[in-house]
Amino acid sequence: MSKAKPVLIAGRWRESDAVGTFEPKNPKTREPTGETYPISSQAEAYEAVEAAAEASEALQAHYPEGVADFLDAFADRIEARADDIAAMGEAETALPAKPRLADVELPRTTGQLRQAAAAARGRTWCLPTIDTQTNIRSMYRPLEGGVAVFGPNNFPLAFNSASGGDFAAAIAAGCPVIAKGNSSHPGTTRLLAEEAFEAVQATGLPPATVQLIYRTNHDVGARLVSHPRIGATGYTGSRHAGVVLKEAADRAGKPIYLELSSVNPVYILPGALKERSEALADEFNTSCLMGVGQFCTNPGIVVLLAGPETEAFVEQVRQRFEAAPVGTLLGESVERGMSDSVKALQAAGAELVTGGRMAAGTGCSFANTLLKVSGRAFLADPEALQTEAFGNESLFVIADDVDQAVEVARHFEGNLTGCIYSDTQGSDDDIYAAVEPALRRKVGRLLNDKMPTGVAVVPSMNHGGPYPATGHPGFTAVGIPASMLRFGMLCCYDNVRPARLPAELQDGNPCDLWRWVDGDWTKE
Amino acid sequence: MSKAKPVLIAGRWRESDAVGTFEPKNPKTREPTGETYPISSQAEAYEAVEAAAEASEALQAHYPEGVADFLDAFADRIEARADDIAAMGEAETALPAKPRLADVELPRTTGQLRQAAAAARGRTWCLPTIDTQTNIRSMYRPLEGGVAVFGPNNFPLAFNSASGGDFAAAIAAGCPVIAKGNSSHPGTTRLLAEEAFEAVQATGLPPATVQLIYRTNHDVGARLVSHPRIGATGYTGSRHAGVVLKEAADRAGKPIYLELSSVNPVYILPGALKERSEALADEFNTSCLMGVGQFCTNPGIVVLLAGPETEAFVEQVRQRFEAAPVGTLLGESVERGMSDSVKALQAAGAELVTGGRMAAGTGCSFANTLLKVSGRAFLADPEALQTEAFGNESLFVIADDVDQAVEVARHFEGNLTGCIYSDTQGSDDDIYAAVEPALRRKVGRLLNDKMPTGVAVVPSMNHGGPYPATGHPGFTAVGIPASMLRFGMLCCYDNVRPARLPAELQDGNPCDLWRWVDGDWTKE
Repeated sequence: MSKAKPVLIAGRWRESDAVGTFEPKNPKTREPTGETYPISSQAEAYEAVEAAAEASEALQAHYPEGVADFLDAFADRIEARADDIAAMGEAETALPAKPRLADVELPRTTGQLRQAAAAARGRTWCLPTIDTQTNIRSMYRPLEGGVAVFGPNNFPLAFNSASGGDFAAAIAAGCPVIAKGNSSHPGTTRLLAEEAFEAVQATGLPPATVQLIYRTNHDVGARLVSHPRIGATGYTGSRHAGVVLKEAADRAGKPIYLELSSVNPVYILPGALKERSEALADEFNTSCLMGVGQFCTNPGIVVLLAGPETEAFVEQVRQRFEAAPVGTLLGESVERGMSDSVKALQAAGAELVTGGRMAAGTGCSFANTLLKVSGRAFLADPEALQTEAFGNESLFVIADDVDQAVEVARHFEGNLTGCIYSDTQGSDDDIYAAVEPALRRKVGRLLNDKMPTGVAVVPSMNHGGPYPATGHPGFTAVGIPASMLRFGMLCCYDNVRPARLPAELQDGNPCDLWRWVDGDWTKE
Repeated sequence: MSKAKPVLIAGRWRESDAVGTFEPKNPKTREPTGETYPISSQAEAYEAVEAAAEASEALQAHYPEGVADFLDAFADRIEARADDIAAMGEAETALPAKPRLADVELPRTTGQLRQAAAAARGRTWCLPTIDTQTNIRSMYRPLEGGVAVFGPNNFPLAFNSASGGDFAAAIAAGCPVIAKGNSSHPGTTRLLAEEAFEAVQATGLPPATVQLIYRTNHDVGARLVSHPRIGATGYTGSRHAGVVLKEAADRAGKPIYLELSSVNPVYILPGALKERSEALADEFNTSCLMGVGQFCTNPGIVVLLAGPETEAFVEQVRQRFEAAPVGTLLGESVERGMSDSVKALQAAGAELVTGGRMAAGTGCSFANTLLKVSGRAFLADPEALQTEAFGNESLFVIADDVDQAVEVARHFEGNLTGCIYSDTQGSDDDIYAAVEPALRRKVGRLLNDKMPTGVAVVPSMNHGGPYPATGHPGFTAVGIPASMLRFGMLCCYDNVRPARLPAELQDGNPCDLWRWVDGDWTKE
């Protein structure tokens, strides 16, 4: 066993105060990658929290310019080390270094960081509000303390705890980050954190602005997110682990933002199926199997109305699933999770159309899997039949009629997305009008004629939704500046003397911001 | 015992499915007011939740015009019945019918309702955001299900569960309300709900838009806020009861907004004391004893620097507290709470300067009470010395020096407000600069040279703050439209066909709203 890699605490890469170690595996070979990583002690986690809290105060002097410079510099450094990062990412996740990691996810990551830099400089997220008659002013400012970021397994760069969406949003809001790496790709996280820390030093930010630990035991994780000096937590990952953290953070009154689970229902209405079923089968096949289905917005449930076109569509998808190569999953836990979830869906009444086998491809893998169930059976056990099978799987729910299809929507848990495909001539419009009100209120993002797997990083994006998609339906994890609001507190200044006001709220608008003044948006 | 008053469930005043009854008392006489109210069963609470969920869907067809008309009509009806309402309020709370209830709180209440009506019509709270290149659009829309509102004891009109700030914000956001009356003033709540329901009928809203129950057992309250079909909860009241509800709602993934406890620290810097100590003593005395100190923003802790001016100031306040009449408290539970809290403060090392006796005035009452403690003693047990004594009490913390005064601020829990008084010539500026960064991040609203007890209903107001002042530092309970955001969900429309978009997001801006389009606020 090689020596465990160092952690980054309080401005120093150092040997971990470890209570144990772990060795990541290459999912393609199921063999260790050859590196060893530490499991941090409670004392080490607490040390990071304290250092972040100190940095949180010191960081205010660098806001926004220093913070924005850091984000830009970090993006540059990631690009300069792109080959290393992509190669390590592939070794740990089996996601292809090219094109996926180097050409798609890495530019997305650096793009997010640069958007975050611009948002910090532009400060539109602060929503400055001024009432001149009462001389009361308010804006969002960073909350007190560091933000713990727990990254998921499926985006080793763009959602990485040391470089991804939550990281960028927290830093851009002015909060230091304690990255808690995902255990499936600690090496990738380490390389990113190395570049982040170099950028911290180059731009003169407080050294504890970025810290990294790789793993903790569950009880230490719970204490980390509920520590009196932590500011907030961003978590993307499994529902089971997320709920445990949520309970600990909630009890301590600490904000925690979670992305837990989502089956992303897609309604394909009969007219659309009549009009373009082959094209829809292609589109669905691509969306569902892309990245071996390991997307938060993977279309895990498709609702169809019973009839011969639907039967034909099921067959078209079956053929495509069987013809498509079986990709390598992110790891053995995902492979096991697929197997358990598919079994749970079958136990609840779903019928296997194709797939269902483990180790059907190279390394960790699971056959491309399609299940189906009647609308009536779904409504008899909607909870079990919404079990998320994270990977290359989908469940078709075949409703007897429109009323039943609407009733299915009413029984959905909260989801990140909901899609409705309809024909182009208007024959589906009445069904759309029946389905939309029920579906929309269950999802954060409603799509028309488009699969949910693309998540554009634009201000209007909502990568959020009602529980359990996330922990609160008012916040998004993607989309800048909106995602930054999660790490802000509302700060009101009542009769505060002019020179003591933050520049954003001063008379004369010295920062040239859009501000809500006496009931209108203005730059005056 | 008279027959228990009816509850308002699913559009009907009807006899409660009661598991018990209670009789409110007049705090001035400690005698029952003569009315009897029901304690609702779990079945009744659940029936209200289901009816609200149905109304939540139906209400969308009335948004915003019907909802705004209702809020305006309700305000008119409250004014038409002002005398009855104020008289009942005085009988139940001992707050004077005039001027407090009829001339101050009632106009505030109707003003809030009318501001909420205007905000619903104007829809600025929706923050419509459009990215034209990607054709992605988003806005806040009402979350699914009704909002349970638990009103506090201290504002029987302006924070009443059936007419107050949370009620107005939830309705204006498009959510039905289940009002859970405060047990100290059920009659006042009943009169208000009667007028609300008349207005619901007059404006043709779904009948379950407003419902009323008076009281439940604690376990039923916890099940109400965590019911699968509830939308969210607004709670203002004791920390103990609020934490129980929070835990239940959090576990179910249901948003809950809480206002729990706040001691509202006030720093009076040495220059200010030198400059105007008599005036400051007057100002503090008025703020602290107003409404018998029963305000969420009552100045419960004052931090001073040790010295002869501070000793003189303590004496000035003592004299005023002793000379001031002792008001009647809201009820026996407040009286008991004062006694327990003052004892707890004394046990933690605070010294009584004056007061400390129960029944010192008419009916339920407690002597105007001033305590003091050294900064060092405060820092030895900051948690106990932040015990909130809800009423006519304050604790002076006398710090040895500026560093200690700053350290005291670092040990504050989250508060609604923090004030700093400084001199007008600049001699306090260095101390201000040391105290402000520590204090500001603990409070929702920072004031200069002004006591915290006035809470203006303006868009820039923040009546919120870090836990335990509230449950989340990003939200405010007062200030329209910001307070409405608590009851919204972020709704994103991705590639949705033009005619299917809500009007707020359609091309051409048919609602003439301010919208965030491609990075600028515009009405184009």
